[in-house]
Amino acid sequence: MKILLLNPNTTADVTDLLHAAGSKVASAGTELVPVTATRGVPYIATRAEAQIGGAIALEMLAEAGPIDAAIIAAFGDPGLFGARELFAFPVVGLAEAAMLTACMLGRRFAIVTFAGALAPWYEECVAMHGLSGRCAGIRTLDGSFQSISDVQAEKEDLLVALANQAVAQDAADVVILSGAPLAGLAAKVRDRIPVPVVDPVAAAMRQAETLAVLKPRKAIAGTFRRPDPKPTIGLAEPLAAIIEHRSPKEGTN
Amino acid sequence: MKILLLNPNTTADVTDLLHAAGSKVASAGTELVPVTATRGVPYIATRAEAQIGGAIALEMLAEAGPIDAAIIAAFGDPGLFGARELFAFPVVGLAEAAMLTACMLGRRFAIVTFAGALAPWYEECVAMHGLSGRCAGIRTLDGSFQSISDVQAEKEDLLVALANQAVAQDAADVVILSGAPLAGLAAKVRDRIPVPVVDPVAAAMRQAETLAVLKPRKAIAGTFRRPDPKPTIGLAEPLAAIIEHRSPKEGTN
Amino acid sequence: MKILLLNPNTTADVTDLLHAAGSKVASAGTELVPVTATRGVPYIATRAEAQIGGAIALEMLAEAGPIDAAIIAAFGDPGLFGARELFAFPVVGLAEAAMLTACMLGRRFAIVTFAGALAPWYEECVAMHGLSGRCAGIRTLDGSFQSISDVQAEKEDLLVALANQAVAQDAADVVILSGAPLAGLAAKVRDRIPVPVVDPVAAAMRQAETLAVLKPRKAIAGTFRRPDPKPTIGLAEPLAAIIEHRSPKEGTN
Amino acid sequence: MKILLLNPNTTADVTDLLHAAGSKVASAGTELVPVTATRGVPYIATRAEAQIGGAIALEMLAEAGPIDAAIIAAFGDPGLFGARELFAFPVVGLAEAAMLTACMLGRRFAIVTFAGALAPWYEECVAMHGLSGRCAGIRTLDGSFQSISDVQAEKEDLLVALANQAVAQDAADVVILSGAPLAGLAAKVRDRIPVPVVDPVAAAMRQAETLAVLKPRKAIAGTFRRPDPKPTIGLAEPLAAIIEHRSPKEGTN
Amino acid sequence: MKILLLNPNTTADVTDLLHAAGSKVASAGTELVPVTATRGVPYIATRAEAQIGGAIALEMLAEAGPIDAAIIAAFGDPGLFGARELFAFPVVGLAEAAMLTACMLGRRFAIVTFAGALAPWYEECVAMHGLSGRCAGIRTLDGSFQSISDVQAEKEDLLVALANQAVAQDAADVVILSGAPLAGLAAKVRDRIPVPVVDPVAAAMRQAETLAVLKPRKAIAGTFRRPDPKPTIGLAEPLAAIIEHRSPKEGTN
Amino acid sequence: MKILLLNPNTTADVTDLLHAAGSKVASAGTELVPVTATRGVPYIATRAEAQIGGAIALEMLAEAGPIDAAIIAAFGDPGLFGARELFAFPVVGLAEAAMLTACMLGRRFAIVTFAGALAPWYEECVAMHGLSGRCAGIRTLDGSFQSISDVQAEKEDLLVALANQAVAQDAADVVILSGAPLAGLAAKVRDRIPVPVVDPVAAAMRQAETLAVLKPRKAIAGTFRRPDPKPTIGLAEPLAAIIEHRSPKEGTN
Repeated sequence: MKILLLNPNTTADVTDLLHAAGSKVASAGTELVPVTATRGVPYIATRAEAQIGGAIALEMLAEAGPIDAAIIAAFGDPGLFGARELFAFPVVGLAEAAMLTACMLGRRFAIVTFAGALAPWYEECVAMHGLSGRCAGIRTLDGSFQSISDVQAEKEDLLVALANQAVAQDAADVVILSGAPLAGLAAKVRDRIPVPVVDPVAAAMRQAETLAVLKPRKAIAGTFRRPDPKPTIGLAEPLAAIIEHRSPKEGTN
Repeated sequence: MKILLLNPNTTADVTDLLHAAGSKVASAGTELVPVTATRGVPYIATRAEAQIGGAIALEMLAEAGPIDAAIIAAFGDPGLFGARELFAFPVVGLAEAAMLTACMLGRRFAIVTFAGALAPWYEECVAMHGLSGRCAGIRTLDGSFQSISDVQAEKEDLLVALANQAVAQDAADVVILSGAPLAGLAAKVRDRIPVPVVDPVAAAMRQAETLAVLKPRKAIAGTFRRPDPKPTIGLAEPLAAIIEHRSPKEGTN
Repeated sequence: MKILLLNPNTTADVTDLLHAAGSKVASAGTELVPVTATRGVPYIATRAEAQIGGAIALEMLAEAGPIDAAIIAAFGDPGLFGARELFAFPVVGLAEAAMLTACMLGRRFAIVTFAGALAPWYEECVAMHGLSGRCAGIRTLDGSFQSISDVQAEKEDLLVALANQAVAQDAADVVILSGAPLAGLAAKVRDRIPVPVVDPVAAAMRQAETLAVLKPRKAIAGTFRRPDPKPTIGLAEPLAAIIEHRSPKEGTN
Repeated sequence: MKILLLNPNTTADVTDLLHAAGSKVASAGTELVPVTATRGVPYIATRAEAQIGGAIALEMLAEAGPIDAAIIAAFGDPGLFGARELFAFPVVGLAEAAMLTACMLGRRFAIVTFAGALAPWYEECVAMHGLSGRCAGIRTLDGSFQSISDVQAEKEDLLVALANQAVAQDAADVVILSGAPLAGLAAKVRDRIPVPVVDPVAAAMRQAETLAVLKPRKAIAGTFRRPDPKPTIGLAEPLAAIIEHRSPKEGTN
Repeated sequence: MKILLLNPNTTADVTDLLHAAGSKVASAGTELVPVTATRGVPYIATRAEAQIGGAIALEMLAEAGPIDAAIIAAFGDPGLFGARELFAFPVVGLAEAAMLTACMLGRRFAIVTFAGALAPWYEECVAMHGLSGRCAGIRTLDGSFQSISDVQAEKEDLLVALANQAVAQDAADVVILSGAPLAGLAAKVRDRIPVPVVDPVAAAMRQAETLAVLKPRKAIAGTFRRPDPKPTIGLAEPLAAIIEHRSPKEGTN
Repeated sequence: MKILLLNPNTTADVTDLLHAAGSKVASAGTELVPVTATRGVPYIATRAEAQIGGAIALEMLAEAGPIDAAIIAAFGDPGLFGARELFAFPVVGLAEAAMLTACMLGRRFAIVTFAGALAPWYEECVAMHGLSGRCAGIRTLDGSFQSISDVQAEKEDLLVALANQAVAQDAADVVILSGAPLAGLAAKVRDRIPVPVVDPVAAAMRQAETLAVLKPRKAIAGTFRRPDPKPTIGLAEPLAAIIEHRSPKEGTN
């Protein structure tokens, strides 16, 4: 089983974190294929960046070879629903997988993260998935951080304290430590938080495997059927080929 | 990995169907332990039966030996939240697992089943999980059936037609074929329905495995922390022991 | 008019409190028939206990002789919807009656109670009745109490303070003092709380009378029609007889 | 116990219907005091008429002598929340009482009435009470009617058919036959409708009695505390006196 | 273009404030026609006053000569939906226009006002417009004020502080300074609040112009079609004429 | 006043339609600056295309010279919230402006359009704006069309019939004829539809003017404050400059 781990951010170090944390819960025989965006921003944190990064995610999916499932590995799930329309393989988002997994562990989950700038985007992501009623709140640290690839080490104690506040004050039954730059942190701090802690990439890894095993058919009806072919101008060639329902032109990409 | 497949109905044939469908998607090395209720009704279909069957499910879980996760294998999830309070191992419900899995395959899922009597209970189950906004509707066949263990064969064509109506008329992106007596049917009819079809026990099997792999800690805070010990009168001994926080008395059950 | 006052808890002292508070608002000619659970827990406080206690409530209702209406006298309404399916007489729950009565006295009611363990169950009860939008919040005392039958005296001042906080800070227009062990407290403290205070058993007493006077027909359609007969194994005989649509066997119960 | 039955419509025949239906369920010793609007419209049916009729209802309540509770006897509850602010005695609305009573008889109630013009107002009334989630729908007859005071006889069969459609097609567990001109009809047709049928004035009669017995204190905090005194110009003298917190001037109204 | 600026309060000074603030944003060629209620209360602040004031607003609209659009200039929108039924010209409310305009400037708006008594009415107004999900909260000053026409000067600094709290603590993206007595304040304090500030009368002025330019047809179907003629008793003559579908009698009003 | 009319589709003929319909309702002195996407698809119709088209809209806005407000002229509002973060001038979407304007004309609006493929995207757009409760439904024509720039003429009669169905069957008070290719149609057919009809570009033109006149400050707090500068790789130069908070490099774009 081959699962694409797509990081729509341009930071390769974060891809490594994601890969490491995802690999720990992968089944024997599952191959995890990491890929990092070559254009965009170091880490997506706002609506505008998600708009751009989601389009880049679609380009990256169009370039993927044969896979059994894909993970869009940015909490906030940029481009997820568009991807679900265009491609025949299953696609899961980091936020989606984390939240749905958390739903099996409690009534309400808290989303705990390292930067306040992420909150509006995350909140709209929760609503987009229809899960606002299951969300106890989004808590973010104040202040800046030194490096996106080391933020989890730098902020570990503050994040644990924040998670404990979410439990004590927001009545959270589960804590999700997000987004991608915190991959792997949940495993380290689980004993310091009194409720189950979900690592989004671990959840996404398992949910992608689940979909790959269940092998759902590609919809040919409903709102996620593949759109009819349509001409395009000026888009990345592999994505253009997908939208136009044709083979990619050689020598492109 | 050892997963309890708990059928809170008294029909052993249905347990066999569940076991067969669950086994097909289990990972190598996963042991599925089926158990059938020895008291209750042949198949739970109403709120009253779910009230009783849920209490029986708690008794059955209290009797389980060491396991890594449990599935309450009746769509409607009788006793699920109570179980999640009392026990340290993860527990998933058939409806819960099917619906959350369906959420990764489309905007709205339809629940398609064989008996109208089930609809009110199912509807309250969807609401209990906070997923009403993701549900395109519940469609049920009219008329009676001959045997609960053969109903999926008897009604196959009608159920496929009903699923197609849900897609065409209710804008469903995904179809869930429920409940327990339809275990295994999704795999047979998937090509005759134009959207992904979810088999609840297959979904539950994978989600139980996911929780067993992620090994979430038992909450000691939040609304699913284990309740404090409390005296009981006249309850089944293993369940009484759990509630009273003591070892079961010898010679009982 | 004969109204069953069913305490699904095993604490007879609480039944006495309920009886006393209910009697004060009963109409002339109304007979209140108290009954206490003989198995279960001293007071239901969690989802698991409500699952079990609700099944016991159904057993107790099946044993009731001819009555005009019944009250399930635990705030949280264990077994209520199942009871409404199975029985021809009207059944009201303590929480249901209190909340609906409170709706006629203000925009939002607060639920004020003596133990934090009750909050998750109460919250799900409010949602189950579709009244979350009318609920200003659930406030609970911290700390333990000495005896369930004396808790209202022990905690009176703290509960009054808590009710005042709910009014000042949660914008509650009405306060419900719950659950069963606080029966009768509302009348004592009403002048110390600046908004109307509802005593659940008083409200339930009046609502049960209302239904007994209005004499609604038993539904033979809709989701609360009586379920079709179904075989049972190992259930309490009177309840089995109800589910199987037959007379109870002699010498049982 | 003295209960004001306030008809904010100018049709005295409808007041008689309301009085007759309300009297049938009144307790021994309850005196029902009917009063009919002397200005306004024959029957309120639109938002504009409800705006005007609600103001008239406030004038009428200001003129009432000492009473234990009041019923605003138009389905749609014109002026109800304003009345609840201004007056110390409890006030219930016909729609409010009918809907809350119906909630104890099923999951969802249908509102069935004789004129399509009423539907928008009724729908906003349901929403105003936060009960949209409990409402299966509003069904109205097409076509005109001959006389508002005889409409229930003229349309009886059509209304019964409509109620049966609401049960069969909208999954209604309870039917409310509204508004005021249908007072008394529920009792006549209850055997021809397969679910409980609620007569709004009967429900309101009982709920007004309930509030009169429970004697809730007048709020001095929260959103229904009495507003501070305020000068007025050109309002009906008794209402002006209430708003200005003074005794009515002699020789007026 | 002629736009009626209807103040349903009796305070002419407030009408002047409204006129001044509205005029500043009016297009060239727009004539703003101010009118002040001659009966009612100095400023509407409660549900009861809104019930009465809304009926008065309908009377005032019935007296208006030919206009292109009307503004009901009290935040809370008394009588708005009734007006929209009765009249052929477009009508907007102060709250409605402010909230819809705010929706184009952010995710959630805060309503900031000078008197706590207004909050319940405002909250019901937000809900009435279906915009509760876009409202970050309603914040009100404590304490009394000296004069309704000078309250904005008296409380300016406190209101700015309150607006800043709404931004910092309630996650408001936009602030609405309401109601009518604060007309013009937004322009003065905009630089002291870190998000866009909406002046309700400025928004209403522009939205009324927009409707006047778009010239929507008067509905002859749907819930805002003009109600059929109906007899009236004792209403203000011009309003009676509108309801009865006839010309006003000479010599009246 | 200078307003950018940004067509994120590549079809210049549709830009002409938008320009013509927008110009008709523009105030004297307003200059409308049309611009058509030079890359992308002829008309955005799905989530994937909106993901891509929204990113293109951000590029186009970054290239705009000094303007007073901008309109993203595709119903569905691709890129709107990202644009509202990045830019200091006000931005409105076609769907947003149409829906908010429709809210002033009735309780619920119907969205009527020419292609079924648009419905899922439109539905998510309505939800994104928090207006689902105000939407009576989305109705779309079946079948294909010949040319996107002539579709309004080709389908005029069918669209009028569909609008009438929305009024009769979905209880719509207002009809929105969308999306961009139908610009100008509302004015032609308004007499054949019994409720107000909104033309999205006309509404957007007026709302953009309104924002330009009100001159709201750019938020420096809240969720639409401008994001902090961030490095980018491989983005269109003017957009990169905006995100990086620097002047665009010469010779680029």
